[in-house]
Amino acid sequence: MRHWHARIRTFVARGGPRVPNLVRMSTALLTDHYELTMLRAALKSGAAHRRATFEVFARSLPAGRRYGVVAGTGRLLAALADFRFGPEELSLLTGSGVVDAATADWLAAYRFSGAIRGFAEGEPFLPGTPVLVVEGPFAECVLLETLTLSVLNHDSAIAAAGARMVQAAGSRPLIEMGSRRTHEEAAVAAARAAYLVGFAATSNLEAARRWGVPSSGTAAHAFTLAHPTEQEAFEAQVDTLGVDTTLLVDTYDTEAGIAAAVAAAGPGLGAIRIDSGDPAAGVRAARAQLDALGATETRIIVTGDLDEHSIARLAGVPAAGYGVGTSLVTGSGAPTAGFVYKLVEIDGRPVAKTSVGKTTRGGRKDVLRRHDAGGVAVVDLVLPAGERPGGDAASRGHSQTEGGLAPSALDGPAEQAQPVGGSLAGPGRDRPLLVELVRDGAVVDPTVTGPVGLRRARDHHRAALADLPRRARDVAFGHPCLPVITSVPHP
Amino acid sequence: MRHWHARIRTFVARGGPRVPNLVRMSTALLTDHYELTMLRAALKSGAAHRRATFEVFARSLPAGRRYGVVAGTGRLLAALADFRFGPEELSLLTGSGVVDAATADWLAAYRFSGAIRGFAEGEPFLPGTPVLVVEGPFAECVLLETLTLSVLNHDSAIAAAGARMVQAAGSRPLIEMGSRRTHEEAAVAAARAAYLVGFAATSNLEAARRWGVPSSGTAAHAFTLAHPTEQEAFEAQVDTLGVDTTLLVDTYDTEAGIAAAVAAAGPGLGAIRIDSGDPAAGVRAARAQLDALGATETRIIVTGDLDEHSIARLAGVPAAGYGVGTSLVTGSGAPTAGFVYKLVEIDGRPVAKTSVGKTTRGGRKDVLRRHDAGGVAVVDLVLPAGERPGGDAASRGHSQTEGGLAPSALDGPAEQAQPVGGSLAGPGRDRPLLVELVRDGAVVDPTVTGPVGLRRARDHHRAALADLPRRARDVAFGHPCLPVITSVPHP
Repeated sequence: MRHWHARIRTFVARGGPRVPNLVRMSTALLTDHYELTMLRAALKSGAAHRRATFEVFARSLPAGRRYGVVAGTGRLLAALADFRFGPEELSLLTGSGVVDAATADWLAAYRFSGAIRGFAEGEPFLPGTPVLVVEGPFAECVLLETLTLSVLNHDSAIAAAGARMVQAAGSRPLIEMGSRRTHEEAAVAAARAAYLVGFAATSNLEAARRWGVPSSGTAAHAFTLAHPTEQEAFEAQVDTLGVDTTLLVDTYDTEAGIAAAVAAAGPGLGAIRIDSGDPAAGVRAARAQLDALGATETRIIVTGDLDEHSIARLAGVPAAGYGVGTSLVTGSGAPTAGFVYKLVEIDGRPVAKTSVGKTTRGGRKDVLRRHDAGGVAVVDLVLPAGERPGGDAASRGHSQTEGGLAPSALDGPAEQAQPVGGSLAGPGRDRPLLVELVRDGAVVDPTVTGPVGLRRARDHHRAALADLPRRARDVAFGHPCLPVITSVPHP
Repeated sequence: MRHWHARIRTFVARGGPRVPNLVRMSTALLTDHYELTMLRAALKSGAAHRRATFEVFARSLPAGRRYGVVAGTGRLLAALADFRFGPEELSLLTGSGVVDAATADWLAAYRFSGAIRGFAEGEPFLPGTPVLVVEGPFAECVLLETLTLSVLNHDSAIAAAGARMVQAAGSRPLIEMGSRRTHEEAAVAAARAAYLVGFAATSNLEAARRWGVPSSGTAAHAFTLAHPTEQEAFEAQVDTLGVDTTLLVDTYDTEAGIAAAVAAAGPGLGAIRIDSGDPAAGVRAARAQLDALGATETRIIVTGDLDEHSIARLAGVPAAGYGVGTSLVTGSGAPTAGFVYKLVEIDGRPVAKTSVGKTTRGGRKDVLRRHDAGGVAVVDLVLPAGERPGGDAASRGHSQTEGGLAPSALDGPAEQAQPVGGSLAGPGRDRPLLVELVRDGAVVDPTVTGPVGLRRARDHHRAALADLPRRARDVAFGHPCLPVITSVPHP
């Protein structure tokens, strides 16, 4: 057998990065080599110009999760605008033989001219439903696979984990502080995704700059260690940041630290932070000590390896808020959302894979979320595009339940929508989940790519989550909170 | 109790990003808010100017791992050069009240002037050993915590997972193809880290451009679906990429796909790729079918949810190479390396936390890797900086074993260094692991920040891994492969 390694088709950039840490002018190379080779072959075969529909969907949720959250849409639409092949990109691609001259000419003029529909950013989703639909000439759409999936898979994984933490924390605010545990740019996106699902603030300054996320922070253990005594460190911090600051009291001994904190700031101290030890016991002891010192209004912030489960267990102790790092930015056990990008229609013909374990469902589709008389979501309906559902969707010939329980098996009676939830659909209504994002290559609402869109997505997430059945908000291991009924024939 | 949320110190950027998807001029805001507040307070208290030593280390390895791999050093040193506070950063920080005017003046002149020592990029490490040491005025060093940890935690997590996959694959090449499963910039870094530890190529074009990593790719299922028949798709691909291409044969039925592939390309077809089903059975069946069709030299590439364990199980089947995605870019269950950045010395005084479960060991340190008479590493020694070890390091008064087994409990006899390993130290020698990276604020060897440095790090990794005991290269669950003996007194 010949040695395969030496024959890999490779592309090695000559001379390396001119600006290593990077002034990025284009997002076009944040993609996989094979998209360019497919393009090249499709231009030659003619497939490039066929009208294509690609869908993004997840085959399943991470084990035990009740719903996923679509996140990253605003970032994706911003990146789409920068998806251009300039002279530098083209010279790399042609110089290395990835593309030929004809393909390079086509790429030089590339501008996505098609349409994108998708779930609103922040929308909860169930497996098997298309959350993004990209339509246009095959060649234009096939190039967007990697960028689309990178953004959505990362941001949605963080958002899904963060949403559960927000539910677990109830009315107590959460600060995202996981930047140091993930790639430095992923950290900015993670801070954005956490804010999307209801975190109050982030430690990440670039997320504040770029996305308007409120940022927050006071001091680390190093600040205490850099001063001769803990109390001198606290005095220095109070001197600069005021008595309303948060003092980190567990560098040495937490009880002594709390005493030093109140000594330095007085009983009007804003907050203390505890970053180690058993949090429940630590908070109770700290509360008693603070109260005994007269610092009855001093809040207790808990940080240190928290996740949605440990936050839920702290509901009964007098913590005022939480900082979450590692578990948030790593998706709490599910660091990627599992979205795939699949061709479902070509020139009006539904197409689908039949690979073992990886089948797809062909054809353009719509998705509706159906609500009961109380305004609570009961099922997601996946229909051929343009078809209207009957009330009998569940009994149609091609029906099939995926990724959830059949309605008859729902694990509880119909629930009231939360009174403050502001139902997005209303009693007995079907809400279309795919909304128009890009038309003729242009972003329909350019504000979605900036801080304004992020704040609107945050509001949408809160409202949409309030419309889900109550079991959705339980962080314990469980089934997807809604059934999905797909009424699309196999081609 | 007052409502804590409303009183978080926040910083909201006004007006949002001017260039949403971004021309980044500075890495200075890829950091945590609290570093700026600590700086501000330390400038006022005087702590800012004290001589500080910070160490980066991991308290433990992910469960079952034999070693970690230091990765990201080249990226970090490149990012350090861009860690500057320009007018835009300063106006954001002052406008939001994060820093005052005096702090802003200090930041405007900021340039790291200190020293950085660290493990060579690609070096295997054990828990408890400092892998990076940052020294300089407290204020200069404290600002680098988040950027340092973000880069090292991400890249080292990928490298550690990837190194095990390379060991499991033996002489068969691996292609990194996980870009779509992680943040789009993390994808570039992941491709770099995979190449560092011995992957042959990546699917990521930006990693090819920026770091000179060979890129590779041919076609996805969508390409097949976009053509009227599978064979027409294969013919189109062969027409463009030649018979030496790799045809993806499992869009519909793999047996029919292989037949169509050989029909389209002839028996000289370069390779097929199988992305679904049971890989062992699929490869065996495909090999038999290819051989029967006369395509005896056609290679079989396996992709689809592989990790180090499934790759190891494929050793006995005639696969020619593997593509790895999700498990690589998510660190195969450990998406962050667990590095922390801790102050260990201030103005010559060793300092250490005594927090429950999070203690540190004060004082500047050196790290030596000791080798036996066969050139095989036997122990990592952590010593006070400047001290030389005796042969009796294990019996010193302050000795302590951390993160591994004591030498007497090693799970096998002394092993020979691999004959092709090219021992870095030599029989019976101690190799210092901390090398000088930055002196007086300047990168000692600027090539480490580019493709040349990456290739050198790749070579170093291979040689350093070859010097470890053979058990290090076992991907089964096990103990750290070397003991760490720390001969540093508690302060």
